[in-house]
Amino acid sequence: MTKNRQWLLRKRPEGMISQEHFECVETEVPELGPGEVLMKTLCLSFDPTQRGWVNDMESYMPPVALGEVMRAGSVGQVVDSNSDAFRIGDLVQGLGGWQDYFVTQGAALNQLPQGVTPEMALGVLGTTGLTAYFGLLDIAEPIPGDTVLVSGAAGATGSIAGQIAKIKGCKVVGIAGGPDKCRWLLESAGFDAAIDYKHEDVEQRVQELCPERLNIYFDNVGGSILETALGQLAMNARVVLCGGISGYNALEPSPGPNNLMNLVITRSRMEGFIVIDYLQRMAEFIEDMGQWLQEGKIVHAEDIQTGFENIPATLQRLFSGQNLGKQLLKLGEPEPR
Amino acid sequence: MTKNRQWLLRKRPEGMISQEHFECVETEVPELGPGEVLMKTLCLSFDPTQRGWVNDMESYMPPVALGEVMRAGSVGQVVDSNSDAFRIGDLVQGLGGWQDYFVTQGAALNQLPQGVTPEMALGVLGTTGLTAYFGLLDIAEPIPGDTVLVSGAAGATGSIAGQIAKIKGCKVVGIAGGPDKCRWLLESAGFDAAIDYKHEDVEQRVQELCPERLNIYFDNVGGSILETALGQLAMNARVVLCGGISGYNALEPSPGPNNLMNLVITRSRMEGFIVIDYLQRMAEFIEDMGQWLQEGKIVHAEDIQTGFENIPATLQRLFSGQNLGKQLLKLGEPEPR
Repeated sequence: MTKNRQWLLRKRPEGMISQEHFECVETEVPELGPGEVLMKTLCLSFDPTQRGWVNDMESYMPPVALGEVMRAGSVGQVVDSNSDAFRIGDLVQGLGGWQDYFVTQGAALNQLPQGVTPEMALGVLGTTGLTAYFGLLDIAEPIPGDTVLVSGAAGATGSIAGQIAKIKGCKVVGIAGGPDKCRWLLESAGFDAAIDYKHEDVEQRVQELCPERLNIYFDNVGGSILETALGQLAMNARVVLCGGISGYNALEPSPGPNNLMNLVITRSRMEGFIVIDYLQRMAEFIEDMGQWLQEGKIVHAEDIQTGFENIPATLQRLFSGQNLGKQLLKLGEPEPR
Repeated sequence: MTKNRQWLLRKRPEGMISQEHFECVETEVPELGPGEVLMKTLCLSFDPTQRGWVNDMESYMPPVALGEVMRAGSVGQVVDSNSDAFRIGDLVQGLGGWQDYFVTQGAALNQLPQGVTPEMALGVLGTTGLTAYFGLLDIAEPIPGDTVLVSGAAGATGSIAGQIAKIKGCKVVGIAGGPDKCRWLLESAGFDAAIDYKHEDVEQRVQELCPERLNIYFDNVGGSILETALGQLAMNARVVLCGGISGYNALEPSPGPNNLMNLVITRSRMEGFIVIDYLQRMAEFIEDMGQWLQEGKIVHAEDIQTGFENIPATLQRLFSGQNLGKQLLKLGEPEPR
């Protein structure tokens, strides 16, 4: 029998999530039932939203149960199949979780398109890119000439959202933590300006860089940066609530921005969205993003960790801001088909 | 010469606005210049937004300057005119301010339509009604069957917004302060339910009354009630930010709602607006509202104070929640034309 290592959710975190909330166990890979597929995990996706999945709270998905394998997006290779839709050797994507092997009905898996690497499938061409694409285009509705501020700008979603805004003819300013990330935004990702929130006064820098004020604020962080951005809105601005990573590990809910009346004065709107509502529009996204990638208009960075034992610590990297671009962990390379 | 009493802004309030921030003076009414009109004030409008006008802060209108007559909507009668558009005896509406006589270019005045009383022109058929109408229909976009929560529901705007939502086939719950206002909402304004925020647990009552959660929240108050409403949103909900009276007299900006992430989880939007953007669509509103009034589908209440000396205290009534319906102060009756 093949052994299957798994990281199970052992207790619910209060405050910062860490390895102590998980337990590593070894189980047998069960026999496949009818229609089932066995996927060997090659690459795991790490996303800030996973922090919400372990809270005992109703949300857009049910919480991960105690004792359950930690939920995570993943890419793997089919190593056994009772499904007509999948053959051994196929590269597939799904919510495989923190384990070596994932047994599931074929319906829960998608084939990776030809030529798409696991890294891209989980990042720029996956739900991360999809989030940036529809968050910006569908919720913010950019107009050429708009001034767009993006927080978490060197993260997986923010970096893509900012570049799409550039493609759409906007002026784009990114907020990120540290000079390396800011340099990357300017020199690699083509942002017009970058603000290092760890070393600069964000409000003052936004005022300097955006005297015309903000038509769009794409928020990945919440907290004080959201408040600052709300204070700098242009008329009829759009605030996209994509995430609020600054508060995900807080022990108590943090107070919100004290200046929501600016939404009234500037006749602006603030809107949240969840990428799963856009999964059925994946084709639109893939067509545009595929072309932009071919034309070299979008760069994408991945921070790739390794080692099954390092999985929980890799999730923490998101919350300490260590990652530049998409956070991944690689467990293996595909076997030749 | 005719004497003109005026209430001037003498100092900017920090915290609660009161009579001490104004000074009553008596001046001469100046000679009319070309095109100018002299209006005798008959009725003053009191609106929470006036509190913002006296702050030394950029907003949707310039602040009232120190030493200037306090800005206010008003209805009056033309007593002298150098304008071809106005004749003595005409009933007109404008931003006449806290004074007996208002000298202005005719362009700053509007004729009252035949049969419209000063009270209605400043309330249900004026910018108050316009605010409720476009805030609800244009920003919230109600769908028959929607559950709509309105705060400040016994106030001028909230009471009309809730009734328009009823006309549009929604279930409407109002939040107001005290049993008298709640009774009025149920017995006169036809709300489906009322919550007395002074004596009831708002969150618990919203949960009881709206187990299907809120499709629309029409916010006139901000603060903790906004936070409570955000915690009870249905999917794709619309939060209309019309006002935030709970914070207008605060010494420091109050923290905002700590649960903005609910906008993400429920894919909801929160949007502000200012009624002056809709002034050019007044005709649409008048057509609908005129018909609803004729059909008895909208009731409207006015709280009418009197006495020039009571003007500043009447503004305070808004912030202590003493008014039911539109707060007005009457200075005189029209002379027969």
